Amino acid sequence: MFPELLRSPIVQAPMAGGVSTPALAAAVSQAGGLGFLAAGYKTAGAMREEIRAMRALTGAPFGVNLFVPQQVDVDLAAVQRFRERLRAEGRHLGVEPGEPVWDDDDWEAKLEVLLREPVPVVSFTFGCPPPDVIAELKRRGSCVVVTVTTPEEAVTASRAGADALCVQGVEAGGHRASFADHESPGGEDYGLLVLLRLVRQAVSLPLIAAGGIMHGRDIAAVLVAGACAAQMGTAFLRCPESGAHPLHKAALADPRFTATALTRAFTGRRARGLVNRFVREYSAAAPAAYPHVHFLTRPLRQAAARAGDPDGMALWAGQGFRLAREMPAGELVQQLRDETQRALAEVSKPGGIKS
Amino acid sequence: MFPELLRSPIVQAPMAGGVSTPALAAAVSQAGGLGFLAAGYKTAGAMREEIRAMRALTGAPFGVNLFVPQQVDVDLAAVQRFRERLRAEGRHLGVEPGEPVWDDDDWEAKLEVLLREPVPVVSFTFGCPPPDVIAELKRRGSCVVVTVTTPEEAVTASRAGADALCVQGVEAGGHRASFADHESPGGEDYGLLVLLRLVRQAVSLPLIAAGGIMHGRDIAAVLVAGACAAQMGTAFLRCPESGAHPLHKAALADPRFTATALTRAFTGRRARGLVNRFVREYSAAAPAAYPHVHFLTRPLRQAAARAGDPDGMALWAGQGFRLAREMPAGELVQQLRDETQRALAEVSKPGGIKS
Repeated sequence: MFPELLRSPIVQAPMAGGVSTPALAAAVSQAGGLGFLAAGYKTAGAMREEIRAMRALTGAPFGVNLFVPQQVDVDLAAVQRFRERLRAEGRHLGVEPGEPVWDDDDWEAKLEVLLREPVPVVSFTFGCPPPDVIAELKRRGSCVVVTVTTPEEAVTASRAGADALCVQGVEAGGHRASFADHESPGGEDYGLLVLLRLVRQAVSLPLIAAGGIMHGRDIAAVLVAGACAAQMGTAFLRCPESGAHPLHKAALADPRFTATALTRAFTGRRARGLVNRFVREYSAAAPAAYPHVHFLTRPLRQAAARAGDPDGMALWAGQGFRLAREMPAGELVQQLRDETQRALAEVSKPGGIKS
Repeated sequence: MFPELLRSPIVQAPMAGGVSTPALAAAVSQAGGLGFLAAGYKTAGAMREEIRAMRALTGAPFGVNLFVPQQVDVDLAAVQRFRERLRAEGRHLGVEPGEPVWDDDDWEAKLEVLLREPVPVVSFTFGCPPPDVIAELKRRGSCVVVTVTTPEEAVTASRAGADALCVQGVEAGGHRASFADHESPGGEDYGLLVLLRLVRQAVSLPLIAAGGIMHGRDIAAVLVAGACAAQMGTAFLRCPESGAHPLHKAALADPRFTATALTRAFTGRRARGLVNRFVREYSAAAPAAYPHVHFLTRPLRQAAARAGDPDGMALWAGQGFRLAREMPAGELVQQLRDETQRALAEVSKPGGIKS
């Protein structure tokens, strides 16, 4: 079962696109946290290699995160218009926008790998897999975690058989994990604390809190709020083991970048990153078309990175990004544990908290 | 000083527009919380009457909240276009939209009353008053609280001399208290927990946490996160002492209303309410023009209320609205205190929280 598998309440968020390296996940797991590999955007073969690399680095428990593919209605004319706009951006960089296609992120092949070589934890983003997929993974011994952003999604995941839920607040960096790619009004972008409360009212599963958590005091707060652990992504971005691009790491500490925003500009799905020129110029025009827009902008983002221009890159970051610490991941886990314990100990002291 | 004035970590949020009655504020203060009167939209004379009514009901400490007036550039052509759109809405109801004017909400006269008849706490929304205003209120013995939504605003308020800050997360119902009426990208809509962390890093003042707090466990969580109290508005909306319209109270418990959204549709400034027909139809067209749009829509909202139509009313609500309890405010304060103490006691139990 899930909470028993945790040796501390610290989970390192899966960050797709090369950030969650086996080195990062292994350092976190070795230090008593739960490290995560991110299978998104990878082939099943590449995912398998990472799992094997991870196993060579540590015998500690870890997780693998998968994107759940979704066929959605996409306005292809809007995608073409966006492509035309990006052409000018590409000309500066000497590249063409990519092909705006749909794919399933190698879903079936990845599941096959995970059934053949089971890992301790499998988590899902962008949807809830069918109950038979969850049941099969559980039969092979994996704990199954589904990421949710609303109480309704929590009920769906609970009914589908999930062992635990990752509860993602709007503060979180990177993609919103929402099952459907809506935006308010119609859907709701819950803050973490109220979302934990609403999800707890709706289901009885163990909850991992995610979104804007940067300090052990935040971890202590979500534990008191009813979570069994905190999942942190941005907090680990500046670790030397993180595979984030050096320009991305530098941007997190650069006073020039002052805010984050949810934007479809990079992938066609809402994701939170630092507000840079690309976000300002393209957010309004970007259609709801994932992963089409991801493939469209990829050559541009890669070329911007090669050109050393963070203003053309996707600088994923949660709202607490200013507090990301530059230190080895294992040390960070230890610091976070110490801070958590200190915060909880204060509560117990007489007069520590007046209630 | 502020935290010493609190007998429990429970503050009832000021809710303008007739919700925060003296009866509600007095019941909260009598039960050991801190009740708040809301001076917004009222004349200075009406505010003074409420303060006197409050004093007749209780000798316990309480607060008064003021809107800080701001002269902003308003696109008057956009306001006129919005007025034309609202004409059709008004025809159904047999009323005309109101006059879209600016006013300062009787600012100087209210300050005069508060200097002549000082109250224990004065809090501010929509901006930071000038340092001399804060200093003068403090000299008369009032604690001064400034509501902030970003770490930058917190620094401004701290430098201006505030005794404490109310830290409002994006989860909160009613108006965003932001000093400037921006929206992302450019500004940032912080979730409560990460905002508490960032504000705590920036200033050392006592912090009152606001936004989506509905249960004592949430209060315990923000105390652990570093706040000295929790401010709750939506949690008190359904109390019999609350002046919320009966249709507003009913809507909070009506399964037909499933989500909230930030919208300018009712007042021209971003505020969170239940998503109803008015929000869906007018959010996109509503200009950033406060209080012009407030005056425009007021006759329509009043007529909708008279006609018994919640879909034409401003149903302010925070993201946790489903958990608002229908019970006397004093009992609610007592329940929240009990829940808070239980949540904090759990932490102290061996094995209560695994960290």
